[in-house]
Amino acid sequence: MIVVLKPNTPKERASALIEWLKSQNLTVHISEGEINTVLGLVGDTGEIDMDLVSSLDIVEDVKRVSDPFKCCNRKFHPKDTVIEVGDVKIGGGHFCLIAGPCSVESEEQIVEVAQKVKAAGANILRGGAFKPRTSPYAFQGLKADGIELLLEAKKITGLPIITEIMNANHLPLFEDVDIIQVGARNMQNFELLKELGKLKKPILLKRGLANTLKELLMSAEYIMAGGNEQIILCERGIRTFETQTRNTLDISAVPMLHELSHLPVVVDPSHATGVRSLVEPMALAGAACGADGLMIEVHNDPMHAWCDGAQSLRPEQFAEVAQKVLAVREALRK
Amino acid sequence: MIVVLKPNTPKERASALIEWLKSQNLTVHISEGEINTVLGLVGDTGEIDMDLVSSLDIVEDVKRVSDPFKCCNRKFHPKDTVIEVGDVKIGGGHFCLIAGPCSVESEEQIVEVAQKVKAAGANILRGGAFKPRTSPYAFQGLKADGIELLLEAKKITGLPIITEIMNANHLPLFEDVDIIQVGARNMQNFELLKELGKLKKPILLKRGLANTLKELLMSAEYIMAGGNEQIILCERGIRTFETQTRNTLDISAVPMLHELSHLPVVVDPSHATGVRSLVEPMALAGAACGADGLMIEVHNDPMHAWCDGAQSLRPEQFAEVAQKVLAVREALRK
Amino acid sequence: MIVVLKPNTPKERASALIEWLKSQNLTVHISEGEINTVLGLVGDTGEIDMDLVSSLDIVEDVKRVSDPFKCCNRKFHPKDTVIEVGDVKIGGGHFCLIAGPCSVESEEQIVEVAQKVKAAGANILRGGAFKPRTSPYAFQGLKADGIELLLEAKKITGLPIITEIMNANHLPLFEDVDIIQVGARNMQNFELLKELGKLKKPILLKRGLANTLKELLMSAEYIMAGGNEQIILCERGIRTFETQTRNTLDISAVPMLHELSHLPVVVDPSHATGVRSLVEPMALAGAACGADGLMIEVHNDPMHAWCDGAQSLRPEQFAEVAQKVLAVREALRK
Amino acid sequence: MIVVLKPNTPKERASALIEWLKSQNLTVHISEGEINTVLGLVGDTGEIDMDLVSSLDIVEDVKRVSDPFKCCNRKFHPKDTVIEVGDVKIGGGHFCLIAGPCSVESEEQIVEVAQKVKAAGANILRGGAFKPRTSPYAFQGLKADGIELLLEAKKITGLPIITEIMNANHLPLFEDVDIIQVGARNMQNFELLKELGKLKKPILLKRGLANTLKELLMSAEYIMAGGNEQIILCERGIRTFETQTRNTLDISAVPMLHELSHLPVVVDPSHATGVRSLVEPMALAGAACGADGLMIEVHNDPMHAWCDGAQSLRPEQFAEVAQKVLAVREALRK
Repeated sequence: MIVVLKPNTPKERASALIEWLKSQNLTVHISEGEINTVLGLVGDTGEIDMDLVSSLDIVEDVKRVSDPFKCCNRKFHPKDTVIEVGDVKIGGGHFCLIAGPCSVESEEQIVEVAQKVKAAGANILRGGAFKPRTSPYAFQGLKADGIELLLEAKKITGLPIITEIMNANHLPLFEDVDIIQVGARNMQNFELLKELGKLKKPILLKRGLANTLKELLMSAEYIMAGGNEQIILCERGIRTFETQTRNTLDISAVPMLHELSHLPVVVDPSHATGVRSLVEPMALAGAACGADGLMIEVHNDPMHAWCDGAQSLRPEQFAEVAQKVLAVREALRK
Repeated sequence: MIVVLKPNTPKERASALIEWLKSQNLTVHISEGEINTVLGLVGDTGEIDMDLVSSLDIVEDVKRVSDPFKCCNRKFHPKDTVIEVGDVKIGGGHFCLIAGPCSVESEEQIVEVAQKVKAAGANILRGGAFKPRTSPYAFQGLKADGIELLLEAKKITGLPIITEIMNANHLPLFEDVDIIQVGARNMQNFELLKELGKLKKPILLKRGLANTLKELLMSAEYIMAGGNEQIILCERGIRTFETQTRNTLDISAVPMLHELSHLPVVVDPSHATGVRSLVEPMALAGAACGADGLMIEVHNDPMHAWCDGAQSLRPEQFAEVAQKVLAVREALRK
Repeated sequence: MIVVLKPNTPKERASALIEWLKSQNLTVHISEGEINTVLGLVGDTGEIDMDLVSSLDIVEDVKRVSDPFKCCNRKFHPKDTVIEVGDVKIGGGHFCLIAGPCSVESEEQIVEVAQKVKAAGANILRGGAFKPRTSPYAFQGLKADGIELLLEAKKITGLPIITEIMNANHLPLFEDVDIIQVGARNMQNFELLKELGKLKKPILLKRGLANTLKELLMSAEYIMAGGNEQIILCERGIRTFETQTRNTLDISAVPMLHELSHLPVVVDPSHATGVRSLVEPMALAGAACGADGLMIEVHNDPMHAWCDGAQSLRPEQFAEVAQKVLAVREALRK
Repeated sequence: MIVVLKPNTPKERASALIEWLKSQNLTVHISEGEINTVLGLVGDTGEIDMDLVSSLDIVEDVKRVSDPFKCCNRKFHPKDTVIEVGDVKIGGGHFCLIAGPCSVESEEQIVEVAQKVKAAGANILRGGAFKPRTSPYAFQGLKADGIELLLEAKKITGLPIITEIMNANHLPLFEDVDIIQVGARNMQNFELLKELGKLKKPILLKRGLANTLKELLMSAEYIMAGGNEQIILCERGIRTFETQTRNTLDISAVPMLHELSHLPVVVDPSHATGVRSLVEPMALAGAACGADGLMIEVHNDPMHAWCDGAQSLRPEQFAEVAQKVLAVREALRK
């Protein structure tokens, strides 16, 4: 940690701060510049409250040198994490294609979609049972019944399933779910993250609309600090000034997260743009820049989808995307 | 609702859509332009899924004309809502000064701060018991004990208290809390909002870092739709590209929320900037543009504050701010 | 254009507005809803000042139905524009690889880089002669001498050249330059755009840091309205809250601009991220989602580059990127 | 400047860098941490290219300790700059009220508005002659004729005038203009800034839509480095995700710029929001938090304003705002 003192700081004030820092078991290196004096702190600075130090009237600025995340930091765990769900592996060169409808609507719907996406190359089935909706008047999902239907589709097709949790009290319903999804709006629902840290089940953690990559990693850290190290990170678009797309897919998050962390990274091109015609090009972009998987909304009849119809592909469209995605991955493997 | 059809839409496709819309109990007005045909829908369009309609390949754009929020909409309830907490009124010309430490640390601390901010003009005491922290390794608050200490300070000073909730399961602990705060990160924790809708207690709802004013109102709507109409909105800064301040205080949110809604609006100048020297000017800006209250962090000893020390005022600094705030309000009352 | 009147607008005020709109040669379709009355305007609404109409106290909202850009609108010109520079074609399936140093530094440097990028597959040479720098104390480019050196490199290698203009008064120096680049900071320097509209030379127009895609197209429209229709659009990253990368590459801009316009779209992965290790993955993402070209910074000795060294590739790194880019394009052509 | 080396950097590579830094006349303080080694550089680091150093593969991060702006830095010039225009002073406790129409339309219009805003308390007249418009098809201003009309209004009312420049070639037309305005879109038109640096005339420099406060100060530095130290900074709203207002007024920019710089700061509440009903509350917020002036659009007949009618006040509305603004300033002076 670097502490920059203000110009003309009285010597005795500076000394008092330095003594206090030393009392926190830190070594302090002092660089006296022409204008500012800079203190370089060595030791376990994770415990020091940056805000406390920067609130002192003799302090101009405080900068962290090392990242506050540890469990998910590639610096300490250089090897890629590989998540296993049934026969499917994610990360470390293994690629997953997650597909399915925004909302589970009926057994007929979810089973038909599951069979079709499996045939098209998907290896995990997604489907919303509990739906976070901006409006209290919008359809909120089939809830427990939705999970039952997903399990039915899993039994028939053999595909592992992923679905979103919104409330830790619902955890008993998720016992047979293969991957639990944390939605963007709950990325910093720390109470929920702590509960998920107690499980032994993969968690797909979506980046919040306005959260930095470091905050995403700190949320992963919440879960991992609790003992659950099976985290899949998911880039699904951030909020910017551009209104042409629903969100802006931050495609550079994929290689940047791979640099910072050993966790697998998946791209959701459906929610990132909210525009059906952009799903394919964004899926290809994700595959080309090294994503460990894609999560794509597919609906058998988008005309009657209950939510997010605008971004869902039909199964035959998904099949085409899947084929091109694999072609891109194949081209880059050589 | 306005539906814009693509150029060269086949007549029969357009007719099919129009018939379907009519079957949803809507009246459809058709304007044929030189390039696009525009459908104006009259009736209860709240049930129509904009995304579904815009997903149709013959549809270029769908625009809402009326707002999807009803309970908090000034259009339907022109009169200002006034929230009453003990003797304190908020909204409709009544102003509140909420002050207190970021975190409750000890009985001595919270009682001393409570007495000092009361003397300086505060009429509500704030203090964090459950603390949402980005890092799992940071201090998470005194929890239940913190609420006990707040109640102790309330008994001694008579000030009503406000504190943040992070988990609906903690609600029994909040029975004697006067106002429950929903933090920015939980603004779209819809499961929590639904639970708060069942209470008969004022809720202070903070705007999320990346949430629009309409989304803030939709979250208020979640609580109100459940039957609890005592909502105080709080602007506390949004996330932008500027890095000089922690967040950017969207000061125009105050008059804009007053136009859109009848609910009172409070400004939090401490979290909005994260910089102690900016708290006073931002508090004055809030008072000058019509805020119904201010929420300001005050600490008896910011040097040793356990969190957010950088933005806390000392009690004597708060007293000066309070005096200037009242002078501004007085000047504008004439 | 859609005009939404406020609830309870007096009949005679509404009639007066409708009469005025008709006097502007517009046909007005009236839809009376339960709450709001909506006017649908048909005719040439491009001349109507939306701000004027929305300033009226009886007007709640004004929404454009048709886009204000015409020359660059795919709706009116469905066929892809193909730009030709020497033997190189850009757009309509033709792909360009633009490479070269951030700044031209010396004849030796620019010729060596030109020869190496040509050998690696580049078909256009870039190099900065006039450099826009945030600080007045930073290196501002070799200016006229830089252009001379670029022309020398062109003579030796046969590569067409592209370089940035910052001042219309410098235009005589650009006579032999093949493509003139307008930088992000000048995207709305309308005086410069008007001058470029008088030329018969391709213009590469970079998107501004905080400009929407529609604003980018309006700036292209400025040049095209002047008579110069040879525009290449360039996505080079937008400004968001994320600080891990210098800017955020809006990769969805590529397919979205292709939907809205017939102009070719090029991606600049170097400036979009400002991080060398991200150039390759972002170049691959651009190629995979349909970009008509890439513009990549390459330096023979990044250790001594005079500016933007952080994001420049060495020629051998560029060669590897170029090979993978072509592999991705090949895989998707099938 | 602080240079953080990567973990496990070979000793000889680190030594080579340290030697090179010393050869640049810098003193290097070395702090070896448990993970990273940190170099503290003392001396004139303004010449060092941060990007160059951070591009080295052994460097993890580079952080500036001191700001790259000098002329406008309060650290080196603690006393407030006071700009004088005729009898009007701006800064250092002196307040200006700049008012007038968006565009100059006719002699009758500009003279009438000038007389009315003067009577209401304005001490500087604004009016657009050259208008930057997003669309090439929109009204571009009366240009030279507009300046003539402003000078006429100045002669009649005695008010100094301010108007925007878009092209350095137009400078001869601005000889008798009292303050030259640089618009938000030209804030980083460095060629224009350099020309204005040669003048002896006050410049009002508007913050760009997506520019940080430090970038605004670097643009002021461009002008001041040329010898013209009479700069007025202007906050006029930044671009964010919120769509309810045209831009988001960053009100904290006022006190923050006052901390960083000695230059006066003016707020433009009209362009910041683009909503007429928000002009008064935003003007009051600006006055309350210490702005050195306000710039407000006033039109005698907003119904027929040629541009930006949505945000213009009528003279009687402006008079009310002016009165309240002065009341707020008076209340805070005590």
